[in-house]
Amino acid sequence: MAQRLIVIGGDAAGMSAASQARRRRGRDDLEIVVFERGHFTSYSACGIPYWISGLVPDPEALIARDPEVFCREHAMDVRMRHEVTTIDLERREVVAQNLEDGGEVRERFDDLMYATGAVPVKPPWAVTDAHGVFGMQTLDDGAALRDWLDADPQPRRAVVIGGGYIGVEIAEAMIQRGLSVTLVEAGEQPMSTVDSDMGELVADAMRGLGITIRGSLPVTGLEEHNGRVSAVVTEEGSIPADVVVLGLGVRPNTALAEAAGLPLGPTGAIRVDRRMRVPGLPGIWAAGDCVETLHRVSGLPVHVPLGTHANKQGRVAGINIGGEYATFTGVIGTAVTKVCDLEVGRTGLRERDAKAAGFEFVSVIAESTNRAGYYPGSRPMTVKLIAERPSGRLLGAQIVGWSEAAKRIDTLAVALWNGMTVDDMTQLDLGYAPPYAPVWDPVLIAARKAVDALAALDR
Amino acid sequence: MAQRLIVIGGDAAGMSAASQARRRRGRDDLEIVVFERGHFTSYSACGIPYWISGLVPDPEALIARDPEVFCREHAMDVRMRHEVTTIDLERREVVAQNLEDGGEVRERFDDLMYATGAVPVKPPWAVTDAHGVFGMQTLDDGAALRDWLDADPQPRRAVVIGGGYIGVEIAEAMIQRGLSVTLVEAGEQPMSTVDSDMGELVADAMRGLGITIRGSLPVTGLEEHNGRVSAVVTEEGSIPADVVVLGLGVRPNTALAEAAGLPLGPTGAIRVDRRMRVPGLPGIWAAGDCVETLHRVSGLPVHVPLGTHANKQGRVAGINIGGEYATFTGVIGTAVTKVCDLEVGRTGLRERDAKAAGFEFVSVIAESTNRAGYYPGSRPMTVKLIAERPSGRLLGAQIVGWSEAAKRIDTLAVALWNGMTVDDMTQLDLGYAPPYAPVWDPVLIAARKAVDALAALDR
Repeated sequence: MAQRLIVIGGDAAGMSAASQARRRRGRDDLEIVVFERGHFTSYSACGIPYWISGLVPDPEALIARDPEVFCREHAMDVRMRHEVTTIDLERREVVAQNLEDGGEVRERFDDLMYATGAVPVKPPWAVTDAHGVFGMQTLDDGAALRDWLDADPQPRRAVVIGGGYIGVEIAEAMIQRGLSVTLVEAGEQPMSTVDSDMGELVADAMRGLGITIRGSLPVTGLEEHNGRVSAVVTEEGSIPADVVVLGLGVRPNTALAEAAGLPLGPTGAIRVDRRMRVPGLPGIWAAGDCVETLHRVSGLPVHVPLGTHANKQGRVAGINIGGEYATFTGVIGTAVTKVCDLEVGRTGLRERDAKAAGFEFVSVIAESTNRAGYYPGSRPMTVKLIAERPSGRLLGAQIVGWSEAAKRIDTLAVALWNGMTVDDMTQLDLGYAPPYAPVWDPVLIAARKAVDALAALDR
Repeated sequence: MAQRLIVIGGDAAGMSAASQARRRRGRDDLEIVVFERGHFTSYSACGIPYWISGLVPDPEALIARDPEVFCREHAMDVRMRHEVTTIDLERREVVAQNLEDGGEVRERFDDLMYATGAVPVKPPWAVTDAHGVFGMQTLDDGAALRDWLDADPQPRRAVVIGGGYIGVEIAEAMIQRGLSVTLVEAGEQPMSTVDSDMGELVADAMRGLGITIRGSLPVTGLEEHNGRVSAVVTEEGSIPADVVVLGLGVRPNTALAEAAGLPLGPTGAIRVDRRMRVPGLPGIWAAGDCVETLHRVSGLPVHVPLGTHANKQGRVAGINIGGEYATFTGVIGTAVTKVCDLEVGRTGLRERDAKAAGFEFVSVIAESTNRAGYYPGSRPMTVKLIAERPSGRLLGAQIVGWSEAAKRIDTLAVALWNGMTVDDMTQLDLGYAPPYAPVWDPVLIAARKAVDALAALDR
């Protein structure tokens, strides 16, 4: 009799695992059953802001795979709109509810892949029946917001709560749709994924777009009028709003796992080993936004919900379920985004992370340009490096710039991944031509500046 | 009495060395005399094609430094239009001729920095008094070509001989100025700095611009009429030409060094150690386009004339002359360019280099896109990886793509620099957001494909 793999959650991690397992074990060897409570498998949540803005006209484009076609090709039994309600580790069974008709099914498993993703953070004050308040995680969320923006009376005043990636991207999308937009952030400023000196460049760009930024301002409630949201209440008074978007981040979706007794780590996400196995529970796997992973620089467990990790982790799990060997060796916190034309990249530790992890370090900020100064379209690029003292090992890097800036963080990410020192980095053989860099690449200029800063401390 | 540093050649390497030495040793400790035979110190030769095309309107923009201001600030004695004609290692003197008035000066040195750069390759058939034939190395070359293109009768038919970076860039510049352009290349195709499968993508793009490419066609002579060039003679007949640009590459400018007894290496360039010292000759230094350097992947000496190396090597020499310690640890052959909007990047070994160096390897080509497929402006990107077998160590990489492609070679260059295997690379934490990459970055897709190719050979 074939063994059976049950996958809970049919998005990036789950589907990657399923397809990698199938690649290595045929249908006679391994049955694969996927339960997905939503309407889609594997859509790009990161693309939703661009659909809201209208840049991506069709939500269909955000859906990576047609589940029926995909499953037929991979000989998988995918049950859409089925939510797993119980995991019975003793009997090695799950119970799933059909969300369309309410029916229940019970299925046995040999291997179980837990890939339930993350759920939006929603404080008590955000729980409301008022219309006009939106999360921004699923395509359904996006569709609901779009409908609201197009409805009569048309909303004019938007308040975005939370200045992380999604909050910033949605704020920009709303401006592009012609609304007046206020972004409210409990911390000092939006884009706290970079240090405040770099974040200030982003905040300036957002203000330049016409976005009103209210920093250090915790939200305490929502006001409504006739069943519609009318204002966001803060410690410093109310901000009128016809539409409110919650961008307060996500937390690992672990309710089902906790109930079943899967171990959680210090971040509140599920603990896994490098092969994506849940420790102590043979045949139980987890991957994606519901698990925690190793930060390679700090050595600490972190929860970094991001599609690129979910895909890699799912692939690793699937290779192992398939009988081969693969490990997921951790993350370094690389991320990129844009605010209008301003590009932002980061990797490794911020100053506050480096302090928290106990590192001694120097940080430098180098101003340069993306192209040779004389080449048309040359624009400023700011590179920040954080280097351990006295070793010179790169601990973190941030880039803010106006064109072809964000993805240059990858150069620094690979240097960081390999434990390079800033002194080593001054030697790097990077591509030079006037349309692409000054003769001293911005990365090299920053590395030289960090070397000088370290030397100055030694003297 | 102060010691004295004489620098021969006031471009990137020489001026970097001089300024780094000055930074560490004051004028009472070290006199610095720079002899430069040209009119400028430190201009961007790489920018000349963009001046020809008109993209860079003013040649002044290509000049990095005003020599007088720079030397006053750095307390250096820079003698423009002075050509050193003799180096006397016994007496530690140089003889230099003032090219303006013919006068000769003789100056002693304690340290000598040899930074004469490279000279264009010019076969016997290219030596001609006919007007309309141009090299493309100096600002004067660029000015002469611009004058000729603007003169009456206006040239209509251009032939570019040589399909390297300069040849390709000049061919594009000429097309943009409205000439009909033929590029003649002795090798199979232009842009032989990438493998032929990738080079074919570049050749296609050039044809798309309207450039006629004649490959595998050695040039044997030039024809002239009334003192003006009239045709380029090849083994397959003549190609009419009103203007001819020679883009046959450069060779190290070593005549003076050879006469003085400085050692040359197998590439024909000057041998130096990692501190940029000429072996066996204390106090004699060399850097830039006149020296050879270590290729970190092949382990072989190579001659790679490129401003980015010249700057780094000059800096290293200057730090050492200044009494501190620095080394130049070699190159990996990273280069980027563009043909119209098509971007090209390369690093490490091509297939032919890997074969010549005795490596066993696999190579893979992965097709992907620069952005998420659904994001506006998503364009194809082709990544080629060459990986050692069976170790999986990356040996070389090439990228061809339509937007934000070229500089991504840096990601691969840093991986190569650090000796990463393609298996390691599949784990890399690279920036992901829809405007910048698909969820599987093109680099990761290529690494996965290389892993699969290696595994297939093992089976």
